[in-house]
Amino acid sequence: MALERRPIGVFDSGIGGLTVVREILRELPNEEVLFFGDTARLPYGPKSKETVLLFSMQNTSFLLSRNVRCVVVACNTASSVAIPALRAECDVPVIGVIEPGAAAAAEATKSGSIGVIGTRGTVASGAYENALRAIDRSIRVTAAACPLLVPLAEEGWVDRQVTRDVIREYLGPLLAKPVDTIILGCTHFPVLKDAIRAVAGPEVALVDNAAATTAALRSILSPAAGCGGDSPVHHFVVSDVPHRFQEEAELFLGRPIGEVERISPEQVEEYYRSQ
Amino acid sequence: MALERRPIGVFDSGIGGLTVVREILRELPNEEVLFFGDTARLPYGPKSKETVLLFSMQNTSFLLSRNVRCVVVACNTASSVAIPALRAECDVPVIGVIEPGAAAAAEATKSGSIGVIGTRGTVASGAYENALRAIDRSIRVTAAACPLLVPLAEEGWVDRQVTRDVIREYLGPLLAKPVDTIILGCTHFPVLKDAIRAVAGPEVALVDNAAATTAALRSILSPAAGCGGDSPVHHFVVSDVPHRFQEEAELFLGRPIGEVERISPEQVEEYYRSQ
Repeated sequence: MALERRPIGVFDSGIGGLTVVREILRELPNEEVLFFGDTARLPYGPKSKETVLLFSMQNTSFLLSRNVRCVVVACNTASSVAIPALRAECDVPVIGVIEPGAAAAAEATKSGSIGVIGTRGTVASGAYENALRAIDRSIRVTAAACPLLVPLAEEGWVDRQVTRDVIREYLGPLLAKPVDTIILGCTHFPVLKDAIRAVAGPEVALVDNAAATTAALRSILSPAAGCGGDSPVHHFVVSDVPHRFQEEAELFLGRPIGEVERISPEQVEEYYRSQ
Repeated sequence: MALERRPIGVFDSGIGGLTVVREILRELPNEEVLFFGDTARLPYGPKSKETVLLFSMQNTSFLLSRNVRCVVVACNTASSVAIPALRAECDVPVIGVIEPGAAAAAEATKSGSIGVIGTRGTVASGAYENALRAIDRSIRVTAAACPLLVPLAEEGWVDRQVTRDVIREYLGPLLAKPVDTIILGCTHFPVLKDAIRAVAGPEVALVDNAAATTAALRSILSPAAGCGGDSPVHHFVVSDVPHRFQEEAELFLGRPIGEVERISPEQVEEYYRSQ
């Protein structure tokens, strides 16, 4: 009997989710990944819960149409508002980045005082607070929306004074508490990890969700259900014309990617409507 | 015979275009404005020509469905790629912000050396260079993409050192030429005018397209074709849930706005498909 090849489906508003894909490729090297980046409609961070939920349902419909064996929501904003709805709609497992990240932070903290940085949407949702308090009600959480860090990461301004100045401005309330652990609650932020560390100092633990999410993913994958085998072929799809995607993807992924497929935003909506 | 009330249609990717609306309300106080901000899919600046063109056609279809008497593309990125296609499709006049802005800059320069700052999409299009050279082939143009200025304006960080530092980084190549005139080639940038002036110095003329675009609009409006009359009612429509739109709109518009209508991104596409 031929091994059924069903990829792990991953979506993000754009390219930040590739930091999660990088971890999956490293930790689960036999698995095949199908990544969808909604680059025509990015970013999700400043948009409303309703709109992010709609886009997330559409993106998931597209992944399901390609017969993925599970759906990884590699976007904090989408994870913070869409996971319950996606789980209700899907007959494959759905994993977000919030719960694994919160669990890793609860593990890392000694003082019980945890900071969360993310987009406006993620912070407004209170998703990390809820996930952390579900683990341990005594944990104290300080959250700060850091919308400028996304374009700074996309500009590639990872080692500039101005980037550290912006981070200092945003981290002020967290460092004043003080917190001993900070969750990098946006998939773009690992790109700025050195700058964040320079501001936060060496004693503060920085939790990057990618590793924790990949560990959660590993635990739900049934090896018998099929995988990419020895030489998995990963596939990257975006909703905007991918002329800059390839170059930016290498910053996040740290390796070259093959040919990028494009489906237009109209087609993404169509998958959802025709479902 | 009753006066036919047909509004001036204005669209932008988000809220920046309200700097143009502000000028229209001031200069053409009897006209009624219907503004559409595509807040669910903003920003257009980093997206491809093809995607920005598609969204612009959809937005225009929506405005036409509301019987506007003309279409003002109050977005530099959309103006830089979509004007010819929109003019071919529309039976009402279409005005962008590029041509009026270029004409105002050609008028303002003494040295013939003009700078343009805008989004990646606007700068990549070469639209300002083309418009300026069509006016005077001897004009020299230096353009710089300034993607971080959009989120800085949206954060309201108009009077911070970090904003001036980012502007200094971006304006470096323009001030080295030097240029004697800078076109603020993004509708967000007038919000940062003081910070840009602080970096550029008092001798450099800053051209804000809103006034020039409104003058161009005035010249094509036929008063007989109908207007809002003495007490025009302006109407604001957005594609995302408008919970932050109202507060941000006041920063750009400098006055309170009435109730904001929402049409979903799916509805925007529907207007175009059913046209």
